[in-house]
Amino acid sequence: MGAPPQLTEPISYQLLCLLRDLGPQSRVELADRLTLPRSRLASELDALVDASLIRGAGPAESRGGRRSTLVELNPEIRYAAIDLGATSIDVEITDGRLEPLAAHSEEADISAGPTIMLRRVNEILQKMRVGGAYDRLSAIGVGLPGPVSVRDGMPVFPPIMPGWDRFPLRSTLGIEHGCPVAVDNDVNIMSIGERHSGIAHTIDNFLFVKIGTGIGCGIHLGGQVHRGADGCAGDIGHIQVDGKGPVCYCGNVGCLEVFFSGTALAREAMVAARSGSSAALARRLAAQGTLTAKDVGDAAAEGDVTCINLVRAGGRHLGEVLAGMVSFINPSMIVIGGGLAGLGHLLLAEIRGVVYKRSLPLATGNLLVVLSELGPRAGVTGAAVLASDVAHRQSF
Amino acid sequence: MGAPPQLTEPISYQLLCLLRDLGPQSRVELADRLTLPRSRLASELDALVDASLIRGAGPAESRGGRRSTLVELNPEIRYAAIDLGATSIDVEITDGRLEPLAAHSEEADISAGPTIMLRRVNEILQKMRVGGAYDRLSAIGVGLPGPVSVRDGMPVFPPIMPGWDRFPLRSTLGIEHGCPVAVDNDVNIMSIGERHSGIAHTIDNFLFVKIGTGIGCGIHLGGQVHRGADGCAGDIGHIQVDGKGPVCYCGNVGCLEVFFSGTALAREAMVAARSGSSAALARRLAAQGTLTAKDVGDAAAEGDVTCINLVRAGGRHLGEVLAGMVSFINPSMIVIGGGLAGLGHLLLAEIRGVVYKRSLPLATGNLLVVLSELGPRAGVTGAAVLASDVAHRQSF
Repeated sequence: MGAPPQLTEPISYQLLCLLRDLGPQSRVELADRLTLPRSRLASELDALVDASLIRGAGPAESRGGRRSTLVELNPEIRYAAIDLGATSIDVEITDGRLEPLAAHSEEADISAGPTIMLRRVNEILQKMRVGGAYDRLSAIGVGLPGPVSVRDGMPVFPPIMPGWDRFPLRSTLGIEHGCPVAVDNDVNIMSIGERHSGIAHTIDNFLFVKIGTGIGCGIHLGGQVHRGADGCAGDIGHIQVDGKGPVCYCGNVGCLEVFFSGTALAREAMVAARSGSSAALARRLAAQGTLTAKDVGDAAAEGDVTCINLVRAGGRHLGEVLAGMVSFINPSMIVIGGGLAGLGHLLLAEIRGVVYKRSLPLATGNLLVVLSELGPRAGVTGAAVLASDVAHRQSF
Repeated sequence: MGAPPQLTEPISYQLLCLLRDLGPQSRVELADRLTLPRSRLASELDALVDASLIRGAGPAESRGGRRSTLVELNPEIRYAAIDLGATSIDVEITDGRLEPLAAHSEEADISAGPTIMLRRVNEILQKMRVGGAYDRLSAIGVGLPGPVSVRDGMPVFPPIMPGWDRFPLRSTLGIEHGCPVAVDNDVNIMSIGERHSGIAHTIDNFLFVKIGTGIGCGIHLGGQVHRGADGCAGDIGHIQVDGKGPVCYCGNVGCLEVFFSGTALAREAMVAARSGSSAALARRLAAQGTLTAKDVGDAAAEGDVTCINLVRAGGRHLGEVLAGMVSFINPSMIVIGGGLAGLGHLLLAEIRGVVYKRSLPLATGNLLVVLSELGPRAGVTGAAVLASDVAHRQSF
């Protein structure tokens, strides 16, 4: 269509991804999968052995004829997967196949700024290193709770991350650890994780909707993450659902997040507890002194009618926005993830109801609306995929 | 990201596209552009000469050193570009560079069904052939006013095309004319035309919004048309803009098309003329016996306040939907086309106002909202691009 032709990924990149995703492979299998002449494959593999990225792993099982030999990733490859949330740090060390070798989670406040947060991340990594999880890192993948310029490896105008705007995260971590670093936003890494080893595995066109403090969306089209012209695609939390609705903190009226988000549910829970419309919430408020969205989900699961209605109303508003996205982009799957995915089937049923009713029949005929499989591990899983991806690209 | 690597387009395809878009090129220039060894280029060009797709075109201007020779597309290549609208047939015959050699437009009713419509298309083509516009066709590109399965080359559940559902258009035309045929929907071909030689030239991420009888959207992401999992992406006419709005013919309430489309404007114009709120429309109704959306645009251009407000209200509703799309997909350009693009700057100003106000600042900082450059020729231009594309792919 007049578009510049897409470049093929280098063979070495494809080989490393195959060994990451499928484990040890025989030379015959690799040549078959990439439809490469054996001689070309041999020279590519030799280069990867020389670079200590892969190694021989003994003879393969016979398929008749001369026996092939297995190759596998260097077992000493180590990736650090770092998922920074608004109020949390999650770190995993994985091997080249992205299997976790060590994990650590703790509460933290992203608004403390990059200096304090990175000091803490480095302390955690140092402790993991001493504990034997790694000797040196091959690459680092990081997710941040705000807009990220993937090209520059830094956050850009992040609304809830004071002090982080244009902080050179990629170069800072890269210099400190002497390895390539990839940075993306938290929703994108969750969607990447879910596509790599979750429910969206092998799905080329899907949306990953994260419902947490706010609401964001990771977009995979044609098998690739779509980040948009300025890297901020997927910001659906401020799409208008009611032009006559209440004012949002962003200054506009009737944004989705005013009606449904962790913040909105917590606020509505307080109102319901104090007005006496929910005995379950009133009990919890008395016991805990405050309420969160989780309390609404728990009380709904116990059958509290007010809480069930709150979850349903939230799902309806989200469903209205998603119905538009389905008509517009025609995905084959919507994955619901993030902290509030715990609201579960009640939420899912409401979203499905609205989307199936509101969108074009042709677009919903094969559409799946499902919960995240990886749950709280979606972020670190995606960060590890990011790390391996940048390592595979930079290692030749 | 675990995605299967994209295949490079074949060299011969790239060569044909370069010669189509840039005209005659020297062998040196082609080798440079494709970073190919001269020997590889020579063998590719030889094959294309043997297939009568290209030919030598004399010596190139000297760049110093040994003089290179020019190659160009075979001047006898002929494409038929056919744009079938709800009420119109537009046909162009072009050469290999997509320059029109002959054109024909007439009114027609798509609901007459495929047999009658195709008979008329073939009569038009036959007349053009006899008139010397072509001897034989190299390929045909067709746009249809409804959802199309591009893979199968046929319309699928088209709402305004009775008798056309799953009609095997590609194979029927292909057998009749002995050449490859490509079929897509009208909005996609308009967007393809606009990207090839209109205002979206070289723009990788843009939306083309067609405002006609209904409203549809062509989506280009990463330089490719995005058609969605079921081929129906871009169907934005039935996105809800007001949950308490009037019932749409689709059965849902408050769809965009209820508020803004050619049909909606014509209906509102009749109300305004009869209620006496617009003298300009009342005059036109008396003279013509009926009113269309064009009358609203013309009267607005003359300063009729009621019509100005109708256009503004329409633009505002469309802007609300587009604001959501901008937050979601972060394009770098929105092109407004179709029959009602004639409402012009009044409409554009209103759309811009809403989109810039409602979408994330990061997403609108570099966003352009512009009118189609190709106007009524966008469709046939895109159909010719489609034809050349399928010819380039099938000719080796």
